[in-house]
Amino acid sequence: MTPQSKPIPIIEIFGPVIQGEGIMAGHQTMFIRTGGCDFRCVWCDTPEAVIPEQVSVNKTMMTTFDIMDKIREIGPYTKWVTISGGNPAIHDMGELVHALHVSGRLVAVETQGTIYRSWFDIVDVMTISPKPPSSGMKVSWDKTQDFIVRSMTRGNGGKTCIKVVVFDEDDFTFAHDLRMLFLLNEDFYVQPGTIRPEDVAADVDPRLAMNYLRGAILDKTRWLTERVLSTPDMAGVKVMPQLHALMYGWRRGV
Amino acid sequence: MTPQSKPIPIIEIFGPVIQGEGIMAGHQTMFIRTGGCDFRCVWCDTPEAVIPEQVSVNKTMMTTFDIMDKIREIGPYTKWVTISGGNPAIHDMGELVHALHVSGRLVAVETQGTIYRSWFDIVDVMTISPKPPSSGMKVSWDKTQDFIVRSMTRGNGGKTCIKVVVFDEDDFTFAHDLRMLFLLNEDFYVQPGTIRPEDVAADVDPRLAMNYLRGAILDKTRWLTERVLSTPDMAGVKVMPQLHALMYGWRRGV
Repeated sequence: MTPQSKPIPIIEIFGPVIQGEGIMAGHQTMFIRTGGCDFRCVWCDTPEAVIPEQVSVNKTMMTTFDIMDKIREIGPYTKWVTISGGNPAIHDMGELVHALHVSGRLVAVETQGTIYRSWFDIVDVMTISPKPPSSGMKVSWDKTQDFIVRSMTRGNGGKTCIKVVVFDEDDFTFAHDLRMLFLLNEDFYVQPGTIRPEDVAADVDPRLAMNYLRGAILDKTRWLTERVLSTPDMAGVKVMPQLHALMYGWRRGV
Repeated sequence: MTPQSKPIPIIEIFGPVIQGEGIMAGHQTMFIRTGGCDFRCVWCDTPEAVIPEQVSVNKTMMTTFDIMDKIREIGPYTKWVTISGGNPAIHDMGELVHALHVSGRLVAVETQGTIYRSWFDIVDVMTISPKPPSSGMKVSWDKTQDFIVRSMTRGNGGKTCIKVVVFDEDDFTFAHDLRMLFLLNEDFYVQPGTIRPEDVAADVDPRLAMNYLRGAILDKTRWLTERVLSTPDMAGVKVMPQLHALMYGWRRGV
């Protein structure tokens, strides 16, 4: 392995933790969070990896060697490594994925489906989360379709999971329309949106904020479950709330 | 298909619902619950399918034709059918599994790993849940091992998932010891035990019982997550709480 010419801005490397979302929910994994993003979702839960001023304060420039050292140190027994962001698609991480494979690990990537990179071709699980209307982002339908098709046909035996965050009816319609394009994808998840700390009602005792959050997530999960089950077009779609948010609230690194 | 000579005691057929447990968590599925069980777990959550007096009151004797009619009626778009109990292994259900396959459906079975039946050979997902010490049942280690190996080698391309309910340290040790036997199984789940209604503290306002339950499950999920992550032997083990209990509490048929 030749040294990587260009270090990558890393916001955090943490784990092992239990992955709380989508097709990997329940799996033990390490997380690598890269800095920088082409999107600005209004409900983004990782602004430190997105907003340039915050990224520049929080980032550490790391080579593949640096990252591998850290992964080996804190996750010696952990098979999965999840690369998230920000949007990791804005970086060249093929060398890192290769190094992780050589060390016997498997790699999952989470990205919004805007920029397809050739290094995705060797990733084991691609989770694509096109952003619904509540994000405030305008998604290019054609671009998203091209991305998903390219991921689904990358031919390395890896999986492609589609995961749509759903806060409201408009988001549900977006998920439905996307589903219509990819009926054959077995791994299509809808994920009830998780409220932010500032969305907790003002009259809630701070000591009960965690209860409030859990209730909000699970009530939304019930609503979304019932919407999915009563919509024949959504047959086969899977529902999974954010388990880490249920367990730990808004705490980071868990 | 020849008519089945012997109808099966069915406690309930319901769905579509979101499967709340293990490898199928998040999937849309129908449920078929058979009556009768060779076990008497102290925390059994389906006594109506286990205790003979309750089974005889609640059961309907149904042939494969009867069951298929019901499944087609209430779950026309649902791909998965989950057969649970009680213990479905005490019945001959090969004809039903075949009929479900012919109708384009996939079949998951949940059983405790005591009695292996030849019809399991054609099941798509076998979930084996050996009962830990807190169940009050004495599990034969050899029998469990034989069952799991036979399931893992059944050769139809189906999956074998091991799922251990964990209430306490003794249960965790049981799960750990079982894991040591099946390190290569990718689909080994631990599931935090869900308290029963009678375990809610007496001073809890009944209107808050649901909050109490959610808190109890999620606090146990955190404890179990941390136990798993800090135990190198448990690398690769997955953690998944009962999603239906988080969403709906002790309500049945959801």
